[in-house]
Amino acid sequence: MTAGRLDIVGLGPGPADWATPEVLAIVEQASDLVGYGPYLQRLPVQPMQRQHASGNRVELERAREALDLALEGRRVALVSSGDPGIFAMAATVFEVIEADAARWRAVEIAVHPGVSAMLAAAARLGAPLGHDFAVMSLSDNLKPWPIVERRLTAAAEADFVMVFYNPASKARPQQIQAALALLRKLRPAGTVVALARAVGHPGEHITLTTLGAADASAVDMNTLVLVGSSATRSIPRGDGRQWIYTPRRYGAST
Amino acid sequence: MTAGRLDIVGLGPGPADWATPEVLAIVEQASDLVGYGPYLQRLPVQPMQRQHASGNRVELERAREALDLALEGRRVALVSSGDPGIFAMAATVFEVIEADAARWRAVEIAVHPGVSAMLAAAARLGAPLGHDFAVMSLSDNLKPWPIVERRLTAAAEADFVMVFYNPASKARPQQIQAALALLRKLRPAGTVVALARAVGHPGEHITLTTLGAADASAVDMNTLVLVGSSATRSIPRGDGRQWIYTPRRYGAST
Repeated sequence: MTAGRLDIVGLGPGPADWATPEVLAIVEQASDLVGYGPYLQRLPVQPMQRQHASGNRVELERAREALDLALEGRRVALVSSGDPGIFAMAATVFEVIEADAARWRAVEIAVHPGVSAMLAAAARLGAPLGHDFAVMSLSDNLKPWPIVERRLTAAAEADFVMVFYNPASKARPQQIQAALALLRKLRPAGTVVALARAVGHPGEHITLTTLGAADASAVDMNTLVLVGSSATRSIPRGDGRQWIYTPRRYGAST
Repeated sequence: MTAGRLDIVGLGPGPADWATPEVLAIVEQASDLVGYGPYLQRLPVQPMQRQHASGNRVELERAREALDLALEGRRVALVSSGDPGIFAMAATVFEVIEADAARWRAVEIAVHPGVSAMLAAAARLGAPLGHDFAVMSLSDNLKPWPIVERRLTAAAEADFVMVFYNPASKARPQQIQAALALLRKLRPAGTVVALARAVGHPGEHITLTTLGAADASAVDMNTLVLVGSSATRSIPRGDGRQWIYTPRRYGAST
């Protein structure tokens, strides 16, 4: 039996025209698609193609299933939303491989980049990631909360723009509250804050606010939270709304 | 005269199949393409379409030209490589608008996300951005070097994975040398370092090394430098090379 291959792909954060042609071709040609059910539902069903949908909280099992199918000789696409390398399935696959390295050695593996949710949110907002930024998950499911606090403090004190993935969920509404409370001690109340909910999906909603006024209860698991640096600013759009952006120039240089 | 529109787009870091269908459609339908010459050369010439190529160091002039063409009623696409919001043209456009806000108010503007160079580099390497990371430009053309040092120190001490854009150029080879020297005081010599040169282009070359062994002279303006966290690790690939990845799990949690 010849082992097959596993392509780890991301569809982008929403509409089909944010998925790269590379990824669309891989998905079309795969014998097996493995992924979280709602992501697979975004794809047309191909004749002879098998879909293996799984739930939201079974990343390790999903990665193992994809690797085992590839080991059987199948041509497998493991499908994420956004980019597969940003808080998504690519790291999970390597975690599974490392735990049993000999087992899947014959499987050919490739990771393919996609448009990440933070890039889509940034585009809707203007150019908030135009200068140095830090990206963090606020979930403490897999890391101790003191590590989150340490990284928040470091990023705030060094005046990075910040992007928060997994800022809250029904089971843990307190993380974004705690993060905002911490940041309010370190950054001015007027610091730009953006809540980008479901960018690229029908429920897309952007809220521009400030660190002093930001309402943690408006943040859910589909929201990316962006906190500006001291240089991030808002300017009026022609339509009465605001753009936010972070200039390339910082501080007193030339 | 009715003002036109300006779409700020990125083609992705290299091959045409990394550009999103959204961006390809905008570029095809534009009356005018504005951008750095080599990026425009990656695009097919459309009948009746005008190309406005510019040099590498004239970002403000290029943004002004794109806005002025849109003001004349043209349908303008301002073309970057990668994602237009990550150390690219989107922030420059808003900088120009802010300096003369009334002038371009009638121009309709949109920013469209693309695959950024760091996502492409990460995909080639495995999943190094699978957990918290910080992204910085090492250039001190537009910010004072002490700010770079402060951010490097903060990111290293808080154990972020780090990505460096603009790590060096012929005119300033010393930034990556100074950055590595600083990091060697703060992080173990065995820390994973990757040099990702020209990802997606014919000269693509990946070097996996360590903080102790990394050779700054191998870094040029087409290289992204990635420095792992304490959790970033390498595992063998089937082909004898190595993957690197950063697990979702951190420290002693659960």
